[in-house]
Amino acid sequence: MAYFQNINKIKFEGASSTNPFAFKFYNPEEKVGDKTMEEILRYAVSYWHTFTMDGSDPFGAGTMNRAWDKYSGMDLAKARVEASFEFYNKLDVPFFCFHDVDIAPEGSNLRESNQNLDAIVGMIKDYMKDSKAKLLWNTANNFTHQRFIHGAATSSNADVFAYSAAKVKKGLEIGKELGAENYVFWGGREGYETLLNTNMKLELDNLARFYHMAADYAKEIGFDGQFLIEPKPKEPTTHQYDYDVATAHAFLQNYGLQDLFKFNIEANHATLAGHTFEHELHYARINNMLGSVDANQGDPLLGWDTDEFPTDLWTTTLAMYEILQNGGLGRGGLNFDAKVRRGSFEPEDLFHAHIAGMDAFAVGLRVAQNLIDDKVLENILDERYSTYKEGIGLDIVSGNTDFHKLEQYAFGLGDIKQTSGRLEQIKATINQYLLQAFAKTASFK
Amino acid sequence: MAYFQNINKIKFEGASSTNPFAFKFYNPEEKVGDKTMEEILRYAVSYWHTFTMDGSDPFGAGTMNRAWDKYSGMDLAKARVEASFEFYNKLDVPFFCFHDVDIAPEGSNLRESNQNLDAIVGMIKDYMKDSKAKLLWNTANNFTHQRFIHGAATSSNADVFAYSAAKVKKGLEIGKELGAENYVFWGGREGYETLLNTNMKLELDNLARFYHMAADYAKEIGFDGQFLIEPKPKEPTTHQYDYDVATAHAFLQNYGLQDLFKFNIEANHATLAGHTFEHELHYARINNMLGSVDANQGDPLLGWDTDEFPTDLWTTTLAMYEILQNGGLGRGGLNFDAKVRRGSFEPEDLFHAHIAGMDAFAVGLRVAQNLIDDKVLENILDERYSTYKEGIGLDIVSGNTDFHKLEQYAFGLGDIKQTSGRLEQIKATINQYLLQAFAKTASFK
Amino acid sequence: MAYFQNINKIKFEGASSTNPFAFKFYNPEEKVGDKTMEEILRYAVSYWHTFTMDGSDPFGAGTMNRAWDKYSGMDLAKARVEASFEFYNKLDVPFFCFHDVDIAPEGSNLRESNQNLDAIVGMIKDYMKDSKAKLLWNTANNFTHQRFIHGAATSSNADVFAYSAAKVKKGLEIGKELGAENYVFWGGREGYETLLNTNMKLELDNLARFYHMAADYAKEIGFDGQFLIEPKPKEPTTHQYDYDVATAHAFLQNYGLQDLFKFNIEANHATLAGHTFEHELHYARINNMLGSVDANQGDPLLGWDTDEFPTDLWTTTLAMYEILQNGGLGRGGLNFDAKVRRGSFEPEDLFHAHIAGMDAFAVGLRVAQNLIDDKVLENILDERYSTYKEGIGLDIVSGNTDFHKLEQYAFGLGDIKQTSGRLEQIKATINQYLLQAFAKTASFK
Amino acid sequence: MAYFQNINKIKFEGASSTNPFAFKFYNPEEKVGDKTMEEILRYAVSYWHTFTMDGSDPFGAGTMNRAWDKYSGMDLAKARVEASFEFYNKLDVPFFCFHDVDIAPEGSNLRESNQNLDAIVGMIKDYMKDSKAKLLWNTANNFTHQRFIHGAATSSNADVFAYSAAKVKKGLEIGKELGAENYVFWGGREGYETLLNTNMKLELDNLARFYHMAADYAKEIGFDGQFLIEPKPKEPTTHQYDYDVATAHAFLQNYGLQDLFKFNIEANHATLAGHTFEHELHYARINNMLGSVDANQGDPLLGWDTDEFPTDLWTTTLAMYEILQNGGLGRGGLNFDAKVRRGSFEPEDLFHAHIAGMDAFAVGLRVAQNLIDDKVLENILDERYSTYKEGIGLDIVSGNTDFHKLEQYAFGLGDIKQTSGRLEQIKATINQYLLQAFAKTASFK
Repeated sequence: MAYFQNINKIKFEGASSTNPFAFKFYNPEEKVGDKTMEEILRYAVSYWHTFTMDGSDPFGAGTMNRAWDKYSGMDLAKARVEASFEFYNKLDVPFFCFHDVDIAPEGSNLRESNQNLDAIVGMIKDYMKDSKAKLLWNTANNFTHQRFIHGAATSSNADVFAYSAAKVKKGLEIGKELGAENYVFWGGREGYETLLNTNMKLELDNLARFYHMAADYAKEIGFDGQFLIEPKPKEPTTHQYDYDVATAHAFLQNYGLQDLFKFNIEANHATLAGHTFEHELHYARINNMLGSVDANQGDPLLGWDTDEFPTDLWTTTLAMYEILQNGGLGRGGLNFDAKVRRGSFEPEDLFHAHIAGMDAFAVGLRVAQNLIDDKVLENILDERYSTYKEGIGLDIVSGNTDFHKLEQYAFGLGDIKQTSGRLEQIKATINQYLLQAFAKTASFK
Repeated sequence: MAYFQNINKIKFEGASSTNPFAFKFYNPEEKVGDKTMEEILRYAVSYWHTFTMDGSDPFGAGTMNRAWDKYSGMDLAKARVEASFEFYNKLDVPFFCFHDVDIAPEGSNLRESNQNLDAIVGMIKDYMKDSKAKLLWNTANNFTHQRFIHGAATSSNADVFAYSAAKVKKGLEIGKELGAENYVFWGGREGYETLLNTNMKLELDNLARFYHMAADYAKEIGFDGQFLIEPKPKEPTTHQYDYDVATAHAFLQNYGLQDLFKFNIEANHATLAGHTFEHELHYARINNMLGSVDANQGDPLLGWDTDEFPTDLWTTTLAMYEILQNGGLGRGGLNFDAKVRRGSFEPEDLFHAHIAGMDAFAVGLRVAQNLIDDKVLENILDERYSTYKEGIGLDIVSGNTDFHKLEQYAFGLGDIKQTSGRLEQIKATINQYLLQAFAKTASFK
Repeated sequence: MAYFQNINKIKFEGASSTNPFAFKFYNPEEKVGDKTMEEILRYAVSYWHTFTMDGSDPFGAGTMNRAWDKYSGMDLAKARVEASFEFYNKLDVPFFCFHDVDIAPEGSNLRESNQNLDAIVGMIKDYMKDSKAKLLWNTANNFTHQRFIHGAATSSNADVFAYSAAKVKKGLEIGKELGAENYVFWGGREGYETLLNTNMKLELDNLARFYHMAADYAKEIGFDGQFLIEPKPKEPTTHQYDYDVATAHAFLQNYGLQDLFKFNIEANHATLAGHTFEHELHYARINNMLGSVDANQGDPLLGWDTDEFPTDLWTTTLAMYEILQNGGLGRGGLNFDAKVRRGSFEPEDLFHAHIAGMDAFAVGLRVAQNLIDDKVLENILDERYSTYKEGIGLDIVSGNTDFHKLEQYAFGLGDIKQTSGRLEQIKATINQYLLQAFAKTASFK
Repeated sequence: MAYFQNINKIKFEGASSTNPFAFKFYNPEEKVGDKTMEEILRYAVSYWHTFTMDGSDPFGAGTMNRAWDKYSGMDLAKARVEASFEFYNKLDVPFFCFHDVDIAPEGSNLRESNQNLDAIVGMIKDYMKDSKAKLLWNTANNFTHQRFIHGAATSSNADVFAYSAAKVKKGLEIGKELGAENYVFWGGREGYETLLNTNMKLELDNLARFYHMAADYAKEIGFDGQFLIEPKPKEPTTHQYDYDVATAHAFLQNYGLQDLFKFNIEANHATLAGHTFEHELHYARINNMLGSVDANQGDPLLGWDTDEFPTDLWTTTLAMYEILQNGGLGRGGLNFDAKVRRGSFEPEDLFHAHIAGMDAFAVGLRVAQNLIDDKVLENILDERYSTYKEGIGLDIVSGNTDFHKLEQYAFGLGDIKQTSGRLEQIKATINQYLLQAFAKTASFK
């Protein structure tokens, strides 16, 4: 059965196309640098937003019109698998991601939940044989069920810690079974509402113990997927422990976990934490910890995670610049952790939204590559930090100085000559590159 | 004497130009619709940010390298006039704006301050004869001096009210003398720090009295410039009375002032108030109160007025869409109430920054006109609200119904058919128009 | 049947009580000024948060342990009525509030929904005979159901406008039947996601038409409850039309509705809009539009409506100061539009939370009355604005001056003598009053 | 000469005092636990806010009425020293803090600046002989002067790095000379405006090099003061490198500096970073890195550093709870990094403001000690985490389990029994303790 009957495979038609069901900028087989767009961008569909969520919000019931919702229980789960692969194939997307509860309903106990998972995982494995879609990452949803009310690995209740461990154990087994490229840890309720009833030290110690056991178990079963932590500053808890990349970096170092994890960085989580998306990518990159990306965007005027499909071209350009500077995302990818608005409830909107996001990052990729090819920012940095290439600057970066020598040098200084940071001109240049991309790239037309 | 010796007149060279001192997208004489870009955009330079400010911030001293700073007192004021007209001419910008204290130093008393103003206003009038630059608006700075510590027209001290009135009186006379198109009221310190020591009712009553007297005086002297209120939610006071357009609209209606004022809307003030720039423009437009624009942008991650030069093309597009829908800005214009960053301290940066802003709004204008020509949003609205064109919908908008009839109608309704809001597709379309602008507009190349 | 079996009626035991099920500061029959605390505070329980909500959030399932949840459909609705009156009686609270869908399930069509409502309204009316609890206000939930996806009175679909009208019509009839003191309009989805698909002018015009028809119908049926608008800046829509009190004030004036409405002001909505709670109360008060209060609080570090029970004593003090200056709330009251945290899922927590809120406002009332009795802030204002009682200041407030006279006066001014605003000292004084309340009020002990 | 002639030494008079120049809650010699209030609280006056700042803001000129401002240059610097000790003595405060440029003007070159410093440091040393006031910490202002336009230790210009080092070298020498308890590093302009022109890796490497050299030099000269980093998320730069405690903790670990530094935590910086003050204190405490405190508060509705004097009693209570749990602040203290509002420009306001802050923390101390004495929060934690004291919980915290054992245990679990987090009740209890403090503490009356 086809769940998206009226929609054909989405193809690249170029920037002038007026077909809403076509890519205008994303041309999967076109090379940018020495790889194809598909190889660089490694797009993934989020199972939860696309096949599970119903459009409800804190003030309203579900709105989504989904053909598979006529089923329930395991039948619903199976229908979703069918629909999902139809969607991956029609969208021509190479990856997908899921939480355990996205793909199979929980049973009346853990064993039954695992049996449900086994059935669906088997079905997914079969479907993967006939599709190019692979599993970018899976994870355990340790936050929705009532049992996670006070956290999972950081719960005040040891039984919940144990239950959470069992779910992650199963998740790692599923990851191995399906050949997942990564395994993600988002601390859904790992945080606190108030310090007044919280033993933060114990909770963080437990979280570290949990991660070490997870790494041990992955090694034991031979699961080689990359482990990723996904920071978020707040929501659902008032204070999430993995506030941002730097906070999680401090935690990982503090508990000897820094070599076992990289980061899955979400744009909307970055801005909720007071950072730009590119800041979080950059911080991870210079610490060799950029693992994967949740490609979405927030509304800067709203204070919660809106998980919008990414359409801001300035941001996709700067994000792709970081990713290209990182040499790509390795085993990571660009996962659309994004949901259609509650008012965009028709099945077609799922295609429109993904096309919007895929085109936006494709534009970003093209512009970023042009900036790199022309050494636009590289030249700016070279010039700006040139004083560290000789003299006292070279002594500083070589570790060949101390406060005595620096003071002596400073005594000899008159007015220090500064150069302008040229921020406005640089921004104008990026804008020019953005609009010029059209002319510079044949396939845009 | 030339203050910007190494810089020639800025010309349009097209999107492919690599000359940093050229417009890439702003082509003043090119027609967009039935007017030239220069006629529609009506750019203005802010005297304060460009010729007076020194780059200091709450944590640092001034940084700006300005050739006229070798002078002081009235000589400095005169040098600034010279430099300003050189700048207007080289940038080819048709308007400028100033506060009283920007152009002339305060004297030891009000009479002396007015004499200083008279001297400089005379000089400006002379320079205007040989320049196309006109005065978009002037205003009184009733916030910097220590006397305005507790406000101006809303001061707790009646002497300050009187002093403020005298300054605005002079401002209106200057506006008339120089043929100002508008007169602006920004409530610099019209607000409060704490309700605990504030009589808000008295302060608002006084503010209304002040505005009525100003309007009376303008009428008396035959000054026909448009009166504009510029809302801002906070900074310098914790709560500014003119929080946003709607708040000021409530005030104007409450005191019978709504026909005497329009709004000067600043992008960064809009976002500080929790709105998009286009929201504020739209609200003013549908109430026939869109007067003029302070064209800048804020940083959504920062909580203060950063007054950056506008470079976000999405925003300039939506802003220009509102302005074109308004039939243009009438006597208003686009004033760059924007400052180069403290680190962009060289004289050239003033050109780079204005070019960046002028090009950004020129792109916005081109894209907005293309959207209008193709009826992109018009068609969406037409379709979306079509139920109000007949039947019960027509009864509603015609005032031809009541709760009884509506209830009877509702009793007959089954499931109501809804249509998707299509937000994601619409955004993708705008992005496509943005990038296509390059191809659609000959002069881009 | 008793739903809260282990809990007895809550009584005042004084500040030293260690009984968690006792009031420490709220002494209903104690006089503060010339009225009892119960008469002044007019506390109300929110039906939705206390009897309907299940503790779910965007990341988690319901958690609340509620004895009535063993029922469903109309049986559940009836059980809730029983539980609610047991709760009002045990908490000794004089008012309650509800939306239509809180008390009765929607049927398969409007007629059936109304029949369900009729049955439960009859039951509530019976229960009210044996309880002191009255209906502070009711309202229609025109936002949860899928049909309100694009708004209610501002929907892009005329059928939805009609359906919404029918629901409000029924709500007004229920209000009359139960003797409601007020009827509330909160614009749940009256706002927009994006201007790109929104006809704001039509939507606002329709909203005004809707309000006029509601007022006409109330008059027709002889319902004399006060009409209240409840502003909120954002959530669920990105931009709610009734952003804050001033915005709604502008709307009401613009459409000739200002004499028909007052405001229901929610603390958490105030802070989301960038204002203090007391600012919104004050603005409404000086415009004679303070109607009622939704007593809760937000978390200043979170960007969404957290609806916490109010416990901040500084804020409850300043709020009660405004309310006392207003001569009380008239037909309004203090409705706890507040929900226990998701982790506070036990039935007892409902009592703890309401006790916390009732005690917090009782403290605020006591401190505010002490401040008024001692003329603490009155004296500060008297002194601070004394220049408006004579001379030029008296001329200003009497309308006996103009810009000519003010300028002449200003020419004669030397340095203007200013006085300190004394903010820090005033805050210390309020803190002192807060802690002294204990000693100044016999019943605290 | 006396600069505060009309003001006598501030004394404790108790909560009922109506003398604005008296402490109502701070009783220096009273014991709380086993130490006096003076010993625990270790209050310090900030030289910059109290003796140097003029009340200017980005929109206004200075307002402060300061008797010493009749002097200039070194005479002004000397007058400030005199005034400062008069102030410390009259306020009876045991510590003060300064930046180099607060106490002495910069000369025309570094040598001259150092000579100016030497003269004033000598004078301060003399004054310290006759005063109990000691130096809590000093620091170098490496952000105000134009040379620090692009940072200090993270400047893009190596000369600036050298100059900054020389200034810190001198600062360490001054710290040693005056017996400073700590030396503070606040990264005034250590951050960036835009990644587009920033080499973050090089800048952070340089910052670490700088810190290592500073530590080496302190060791060399035998300066044993505690090194403190003061995090701040933004302002003046858009992104400060030391965003919050966790970010700086990551940095310190990354560069092997974690044993050389503790944190100086500012309340207003915490809230600007999206955290509560107590969160930052708690994070530092459980990592043994709580060094000292900048005691102020921000306005949660404003997005910049307002540096208000602390008056929120809830916050001072939770802060003092953390400090007492830490065993006090060791060599740190409570520095009032707070400024009187621009409108509080009279000399008396300096006393009012400090009294407000000192009383607020004294209340916090009293309440926190009562909470500890009664084991209020300790009992809550004990109960809440009791499952980790035996069985599977004990296995977890003992490192005596793995994913296999945890899964087996989870298979045996039925519904997991949860307990309420009781947030509302706990908050009510804290409020009760706050108000009861009055009765529980004899000296309050």
